[in-house]
Amino acid sequence: MLSKSQVSFVNALHHKKHRKEQGLFIAEGIKSITEFLQSDYSVDTIFCIPDATPKLSKFSQKIKLFETGSAELKKISALTTPQDAIALIRIPEKTNIHPESFKNRFTIVLDGVQDPGNLGTIIRTADWFGFGEIICSIDTVEAYNPKVVQATMGSLSRIRVHYTDLETLLGDAPVPVFGAMLDGQSVYEANLGNEGFLVLGNEGKGISEKVTSKIGRRITIPSFGKAESLNVAISAAILCSELRRRL
Amino acid sequence: MLSKSQVSFVNALHHKKHRKEQGLFIAEGIKSITEFLQSDYSVDTIFCIPDATPKLSKFSQKIKLFETGSAELKKISALTTPQDAIALIRIPEKTNIHPESFKNRFTIVLDGVQDPGNLGTIIRTADWFGFGEIICSIDTVEAYNPKVVQATMGSLSRIRVHYTDLETLLGDAPVPVFGAMLDGQSVYEANLGNEGFLVLGNEGKGISEKVTSKIGRRITIPSFGKAESLNVAISAAILCSELRRRL
Repeated sequence: MLSKSQVSFVNALHHKKHRKEQGLFIAEGIKSITEFLQSDYSVDTIFCIPDATPKLSKFSQKIKLFETGSAELKKISALTTPQDAIALIRIPEKTNIHPESFKNRFTIVLDGVQDPGNLGTIIRTADWFGFGEIICSIDTVEAYNPKVVQATMGSLSRIRVHYTDLETLLGDAPVPVFGAMLDGQSVYEANLGNEGFLVLGNEGKGISEKVTSKIGRRITIPSFGKAESLNVAISAAILCSELRRRL
Repeated sequence: MLSKSQVSFVNALHHKKHRKEQGLFIAEGIKSITEFLQSDYSVDTIFCIPDATPKLSKFSQKIKLFETGSAELKKISALTTPQDAIALIRIPEKTNIHPESFKNRFTIVLDGVQDPGNLGTIIRTADWFGFGEIICSIDTVEAYNPKVVQATMGSLSRIRVHYTDLETLLGDAPVPVFGAMLDGQSVYEANLGNEGFLVLGNEGKGISEKVTSKIGRRITIPSFGKAESLNVAISAAILCSELRRRL
């Protein structure tokens, strides 16, 4: 049985403001929580059904663990389909970005992506293709939003997501800056070299004007039909696949 | 001002049972509705704010149009962010599938995809890459679900979605049957010819056992990282891109 104050504490973490205040975010589901337990993240508290305890308590991290029923978990879940376990995990300290570290590799850069499902899916895809970091504009949806965490399917435990001013970063970029835009060169034909920032924009508005001015080369996924555009997570995935295929 | 009965009629269409009974589905947003008005679909009724009327009444289709306020539209919207216009559109008659028509091209086949956003995104992506049809197993989410319609961003007006028993279709397939599976040949290396069914499975369980028995060749998107799998809409997009790149 969860106390009233536990329920209201966890529910407050559904909101960005309280996540920031408490320095905690929510991950749901045994599989996802297990991946955080095996990572550098520090898992603070787990609420789970008794059956889940053996799976979640076998790791070396020191955790406050509370067993409870499914109906209680539903009260604190941020998802429409609640899971058997909910963890409160420490938001890592902000680390500085060292532009030189982006040499000899490709890095995904997101400018104003708003949909949590899109960001989560991009993180999961980046993990599949072995891109270790993602850089986001300040106005991109927060990576610790519960819907983002859910959509990453555990990959957030491995992919570092930085938030920074893109104009500054790209204005002094140590690698070529590629922009995914509708009027660029076909990615099937472009020689992209072996390093770069790959910028993708907002779902409706694309890359902002300020960031567009920092794009060195525009690249496009050729269209063979009539859709006006591709979903941003789809574009990111196709470009990641193209980059990996050639390396 | 909408009548009580109008509100309850439209809200009933949020549910599959009532869509089937009435033969109508909902599309929201001026852009999406405009694409249906320019297609073979028959738009029955439009509810919109007065500003939207000129944009939506310039087409030749005979439509019942009701002007109303944003607050009223919110009452009948199936979306969290309601749009300026909501249309009721006729669900087309079921057409028979002619297996021979799938020769000399690739067709996406979905086995048990459950998430409306995933199906909608796959329809949008298929439209981008010029795949005209999608075949779904009977237990795949319904294409006229409002969340699917929304995620297609108008592409549903151009892509025909068939529902059929996949065992029967694939058991007697006139083209090679490819399955997107984790243990297949790299799609980067595979020669896939110029025709085939490309089967993708359920979000959690993959391709069902029965359908797996009909797969002729397993293909895989190579992994370079640690994610266990890719989202099904992402996999579909990367495979579509690979097929188009080579044709």
